[in-house]
Amino acid sequence: MNIEIKNILAVLPKGDGYEVKETNIYIKGDTIEKIGDKPDGFTAEKVLEGKDRLAIPGLINSHTHTYMSVFRNLADDLSFEDWLFKNVMPREDKLTNEDAYWGAMLACAEMIKTGTTTFLDMHMFKNQTINAANKTGMRAVISRGLAGNGMDEGAVRRLNEAKEEMEYAKDMSRISFMLAPHAIYTCDREYLQIIVQEAKKLNLPIHLHLSEAKSENAQTMESDGISAVEYVEKLGIFDVKTILAHCVQVNEKDMDILAKHNVSVAANPKSNLKLANGIAPIYQMLDKGINVCIGTDSCASNNTLNMFSDMNYTALLHKGTNGDPTAVTAEQVLKMATENAAKALDLENVTGAIREGLKADIAILDLNCPQFVPRQNLVAALSYSANGSEVDTVIIDGEIVMENGKLTLVDEAEIYAKANEVMERLK
Amino acid sequence: MNIEIKNILAVLPKGDGYEVKETNIYIKGDTIEKIGDKPDGFTAEKVLEGKDRLAIPGLINSHTHTYMSVFRNLADDLSFEDWLFKNVMPREDKLTNEDAYWGAMLACAEMIKTGTTTFLDMHMFKNQTINAANKTGMRAVISRGLAGNGMDEGAVRRLNEAKEEMEYAKDMSRISFMLAPHAIYTCDREYLQIIVQEAKKLNLPIHLHLSEAKSENAQTMESDGISAVEYVEKLGIFDVKTILAHCVQVNEKDMDILAKHNVSVAANPKSNLKLANGIAPIYQMLDKGINVCIGTDSCASNNTLNMFSDMNYTALLHKGTNGDPTAVTAEQVLKMATENAAKALDLENVTGAIREGLKADIAILDLNCPQFVPRQNLVAALSYSANGSEVDTVIIDGEIVMENGKLTLVDEAEIYAKANEVMERLK
Repeated sequence: MNIEIKNILAVLPKGDGYEVKETNIYIKGDTIEKIGDKPDGFTAEKVLEGKDRLAIPGLINSHTHTYMSVFRNLADDLSFEDWLFKNVMPREDKLTNEDAYWGAMLACAEMIKTGTTTFLDMHMFKNQTINAANKTGMRAVISRGLAGNGMDEGAVRRLNEAKEEMEYAKDMSRISFMLAPHAIYTCDREYLQIIVQEAKKLNLPIHLHLSEAKSENAQTMESDGISAVEYVEKLGIFDVKTILAHCVQVNEKDMDILAKHNVSVAANPKSNLKLANGIAPIYQMLDKGINVCIGTDSCASNNTLNMFSDMNYTALLHKGTNGDPTAVTAEQVLKMATENAAKALDLENVTGAIREGLKADIAILDLNCPQFVPRQNLVAALSYSANGSEVDTVIIDGEIVMENGKLTLVDEAEIYAKANEVMERLK
Repeated sequence: MNIEIKNILAVLPKGDGYEVKETNIYIKGDTIEKIGDKPDGFTAEKVLEGKDRLAIPGLINSHTHTYMSVFRNLADDLSFEDWLFKNVMPREDKLTNEDAYWGAMLACAEMIKTGTTTFLDMHMFKNQTINAANKTGMRAVISRGLAGNGMDEGAVRRLNEAKEEMEYAKDMSRISFMLAPHAIYTCDREYLQIIVQEAKKLNLPIHLHLSEAKSENAQTMESDGISAVEYVEKLGIFDVKTILAHCVQVNEKDMDILAKHNVSVAANPKSNLKLANGIAPIYQMLDKGINVCIGTDSCASNNTLNMFSDMNYTALLHKGTNGDPTAVTAEQVLKMATENAAKALDLENVTGAIREGLKADIAILDLNCPQFVPRQNLVAALSYSANGSEVDTVIIDGEIVMENGKLTLVDEAEIYAKANEVMERLK
């Protein structure tokens, strides 16, 4: 379908930053054909009026576990042990594929409603995230969580499932893949090295939790006398394009290693606070030129997949903890949530900005709300005053997946009912 | 008007915490007459259906400067000097009373739309916050900011204006007062002592910024060899009921002093991060039994008056910085944003809970949204997953000031237009 978005304020890339200007956006099929005057011969099948609206690049959630949305508001303010072993894991063990599907559907619904158009998922229920992304219209990078030792049965099975997912989705244009060793404490050396070889063979990036908790450095310090980052470097993981989730417990030397290998970091500020892991040194990482993006992590540790909230934390937290009110600007935060993430997810030629030639992944916000008044710096508004509820219409890959606050491809009420049923059963 | 809220999930006080249960709420005039079965002879003039809705006590914003809402998203990511002297102050100097009124109207609109029913304001434009609160239907505690030296002209004039406001509002049941010496760096000792005497005479509490930045302790250390908290104690301020905004830079001994004198603290987590002042030791304050409440501060340093966001920070921040995932629970956060605040504002017999006999200050949230699904711990949801946009209907003092997302007493579009005009003029 060809779409014309008329007379809209748009957040457009300009130099290293952004400009906000009133313009028209012409979408031909799945692609942003033109920004500005109508191209010759363009006929719109759908016209969206832009008055009092703001078009922003669709946000990219660079680290989440969508199926876990059913665990939202289940078990908070608890010790890590009570949270994980008494609440999350016993229920996770009982989740069926269908439960995981409804969890992922709930996640996709929340993400679209808050302006996210692409996400990187780590999961363990084959095809369920793919099905939910497909159904709701989202762009997704899929990575089956891999845990195990060497060539043991579970390790092999999980890697096979990851490959089966690739086969399953091979004709789905919005779905791409990474390989996701879960963590250094759930994968042994041999398995990590097998995964690196597979990643090279399949030409896929790697997605790994690293240096989230202090215990990871303690483990590698004991076994090898080096940090978790050094341990992973030594195993050759960084020979492959890599995105690391968390990186809270990293020192100067670790960050230099990440910078040297062009490793991307998905910061998860809210999850790290909630699970009491601390605050990642994002200001320092940016200074070293590390490609930082933003993830919400799962609903079990956030408890929302609303990127606007994690963007707000990213803009505020490092000012307060570094004693510098200029630390991490709103423009940098928007880059992290869009362009940097597109780079990290191997989608830099696909999404991450409102730019001619990229796919049309656009969120349209309604500016008729107190948090956007007065209408001053609208890029600042995205990180500082928006709460995500301003998102009114969302286009992914040229398809309108939400219009006037309603998802167009799925029945929201059904999703809520099904997710409630899952947790009623697992009470 | 008599209102019946039918079959609604309500967050009700129970012991030291809360319970959530389905019930009916009967409001007679301005008061919650009954929770449960319909009282004999009760006739509702208005019935609100409670299905898929959650009634919570109206939130209380314990520290803000409403007129400054016109400065939202004006000047972010700047050094303190560039922010204050080059951006905020030159415009503040040019604000007229009418400008301040529209700023306060914008603030009230945002607060109501995000579930806040009461606020404590510090300002410098006579009667304008009172007028905005009255017009929008909000409950407000008004405190004219006092700055000056001893009996100088400005000092005397400001104190007189504070008293003139009290006279102006003497018949307004939703408006009450405090005296507000601005800070120890803008009021000299003599003026602070005069204000204490006035507060005793008028039987009013005191509202003061204290220990926001490190420089305050440096000042009193140089002049008197003591901390800012000790300095204020020595001047006799704590002989009067006091609420202190910020208290970021307080040590163990300072906190013991605050606890000893039953001083209340309004934490402003987002403002303190944004202006790079740090993180107040709220977990320690709670441990010492200090009455902590939550404020947004102004839109110049937040940039929103949405209490749900500051509640979320209050729940997450202290877990992350204390390495303790049980630090500051969702129940504690809700208390801070309601009952604790009512105590601090001398309104404990008026508001702060859904309780028979208190005034009807209630926010009703729509639960049909991803962030409240699955429907698990709804008190946790308020601090962890809500973003404020779920607020659908708001009752203050028994009056419906918002219904189905629309303010009932004022024209939202006019407020946005006027606030935009102010800042267009002051560009």
